[in-house]
Amino acid sequence: MEPAIIVHGGAVKFSGEKVGRALEGTKNAASRGYRILIQGRSAIDAVQAAICELENDPTFDAGTGSPLTSEGDIEMDAVIMDGRTLESGAVAAVKNVKNPIVLARMVMENTPHCLLVGQGANQFADEEGVPRISKEKLITEENRNKLLEFKSSYGKAVMNDFSTRDHDTVGAVAIDKDGNIAFGTSTGGITNKRPGRVGDSPLAGIGGYADNKVGGISCTGHGESITRVALAYDIISKMKYANMTIQAAADEALSEMSEKLANAENNFSAGVIGIGKDGVPVYSFKTEQMAWAWARNGKLHNGVNPGDDDVYSVEIDSDSTLIKDD
Amino acid sequence: MEPAIIVHGGAVKFSGEKVGRALEGTKNAASRGYRILIQGRSAIDAVQAAICELENDPTFDAGTGSPLTSEGDIEMDAVIMDGRTLESGAVAAVKNVKNPIVLARMVMENTPHCLLVGQGANQFADEEGVPRISKEKLITEENRNKLLEFKSSYGKAVMNDFSTRDHDTVGAVAIDKDGNIAFGTSTGGITNKRPGRVGDSPLAGIGGYADNKVGGISCTGHGESITRVALAYDIISKMKYANMTIQAAADEALSEMSEKLANAENNFSAGVIGIGKDGVPVYSFKTEQMAWAWARNGKLHNGVNPGDDDVYSVEIDSDSTLIKDD
Repeated sequence: MEPAIIVHGGAVKFSGEKVGRALEGTKNAASRGYRILIQGRSAIDAVQAAICELENDPTFDAGTGSPLTSEGDIEMDAVIMDGRTLESGAVAAVKNVKNPIVLARMVMENTPHCLLVGQGANQFADEEGVPRISKEKLITEENRNKLLEFKSSYGKAVMNDFSTRDHDTVGAVAIDKDGNIAFGTSTGGITNKRPGRVGDSPLAGIGGYADNKVGGISCTGHGESITRVALAYDIISKMKYANMTIQAAADEALSEMSEKLANAENNFSAGVIGIGKDGVPVYSFKTEQMAWAWARNGKLHNGVNPGDDDVYSVEIDSDSTLIKDD
Repeated sequence: MEPAIIVHGGAVKFSGEKVGRALEGTKNAASRGYRILIQGRSAIDAVQAAICELENDPTFDAGTGSPLTSEGDIEMDAVIMDGRTLESGAVAAVKNVKNPIVLARMVMENTPHCLLVGQGANQFADEEGVPRISKEKLITEENRNKLLEFKSSYGKAVMNDFSTRDHDTVGAVAIDKDGNIAFGTSTGGITNKRPGRVGDSPLAGIGGYADNKVGGISCTGHGESITRVALAYDIISKMKYANMTIQAAADEALSEMSEKLANAENNFSAGVIGIGKDGVPVYSFKTEQMAWAWARNGKLHNGVNPGDDDVYSVEIDSDSTLIKDD
C-alpha cells in the first residue's frame, strides 16, 4: 500500500492573520507524519507524531493554545484508534499534560479501558510518569483575551457565535505500507465551556473512527452537533452498508447533518478528513474554512478555503524532510 | 401510535438468587414507564421514570448498587436522548448523586452541552440544587465484597472474568402516542475499574441512540468491546442504509461484534433492547442472560434466559398500576 496521511487543523473560520499559520502548521504536521510512514513505521505512530506537532503549535485549539473554560482553566480531550484491532484509547477533561494524544495512546496500550476522564485521567498520567505542565504554559494571550471577550459579550453564554469564530480542533488519519489505518483527534474544546464539558472529539465512533476494512475518519466542528448525528460512524456506515465512496459518504453525511439540525437551537456545521481502504485521502467541510494538508506519493497538498489546493514536493532523506514548491 | 416501553437490567449472567430480583426489578421499571405513557406523557418522561426505578433498585449496577472502583469509590454514568430533536444529555464519572439519569436530563435541558464529566458534572449538580448523597448510601454489601474478592483474586486486573459475572447496567427505550422515541442508559460501570473510566453507556451513538425516523437502542455488556464497534449506531445504520428490521439489525450487529473481536484480548459480548419506528419492542443478546421487560397493548412481557417470555396483564387506573398473571 502507498502510505498516506491527512491532517486537519480545525473547521469554521480562521481570523485573517491566522490563515497563514494554519496552512503552515497543517503542512508541518502532515510532513512529520508522512516522514514516519515513509520510514516504514505504523499509521498509529504517524498519527501520533502529526498530532503532537499540532498540539505543540499554539495556532491550534489543542495542547498548547487550548481555549479556556468558563473558569479560566485548560481541559483537554484526545483519542487515538487502531483500525487493525478497533482498539482505541482516549482521555477527556484532562489537565496539565503537554500532549494529550500521547496519554490517549497510553490508555489504549497500558489499561484495559478505552476512556479515562477528569481526575482519573490525571491520576493515570501521574502513574505513567507523564510530566505535569503548568496551565500557564498551555494558555496563549490570544485565548486569554477570547475568554474575556466572551465573558463581557455574553456572560454565561457559550455558543452564540460559534459559527463565526476560530475552532481549531486537530486531527489526523493515516494508512501505512501494510494497509493499517489509524485516526486521532485532539482538542481543548471551546472557549467558555463549562468545566467537565466533553464534545465529540475524544469519542471513537462519534468524532472519528478507524477500521482497516472500511477507512478512517476524524471530525472537527461543533461537538454537540456532531454528537447528535454520530458523524464519524455515519460516514463509515454509508461506506459499509450503502456502498458509497468515502468522498460521497463524507459529503452526504455533512449535508444531512445540516438538514437534520436545520431547526435546532444550536445548528452548527462541521468538517471531516478521511482515508478509505483504497488509501486516497479526502476531506469535506460545510464550514467557511477548514485547514487541511495531506501527503502521498511524494506530494503534499494543502488548503484552507473551498477550492484551495497548494501542491508541494516532499523529499525525505535520513536527516531531514524537505518541502519544496511544486 | 400505540405507546410502548422496553427496559433492560444488564447482560452477561446473574448469580442464582439474583435472577428473581432482576425479573421483578425490570418488570417494575417497565410498568412504571408504561403507566406514564398511558397517561399521555412523553417517551423521555417514561424513560427517565423507568431508569430511576432501576437506579433505586440495589439489584442493578446503576445508582444505588453501583459497583466499586479500584479505590472503593462510586462513579456513575448516564445518558438520555430525545429522538425528536436528536438532543442528548449525559454525565460520566459523577459521584454522590442518587439518580444520574435525572442529572443527564438536566445537562440536556439546561446547558448548551451534551456531556459533562467528573468534577464538572458534580459542580453542575450542585448548581442545579441536586441533593448530594453519601457514597455509603449507594454502596451495597454485595458490591463491597465483590471488590474485595477481585482484589484478592486478581490484584490490579479488572476484566478477567467479566463474562461470568453480573454486569447490570440498566437502560430503557420508549415510544409515546405521538411517535416520539427516547432512550436512556445508566451504570456504575464495572467492579475494580480505574477512577475516571468511562465505558459505552453514557455515549449517545455508542451505548445507545434514538431517532424518531429510525428507532431507539440501548446497549449493555462490556463497554470497551461495545465502543470498538459503535454498537448502537451500527444497528441504527443497518436499519437506515441496509433496510433491515430492528430485530435483524440487532441480531446481525451482535453476531458481527463477536466475529470482529474474536481475536481480541478482551473479547466480551453484549445485549441490546430497542424499539423501531413501527413501535414494536425487540431485544437481542449474545451473553448467557439479559434481564428485560417490555409493555405494550396492556401486556407486559418479561424474561432473563434465552426463550423466556412471561406474560402479564397491566391494568392502570388513576391510583395504581396492577400487574396480573396472564
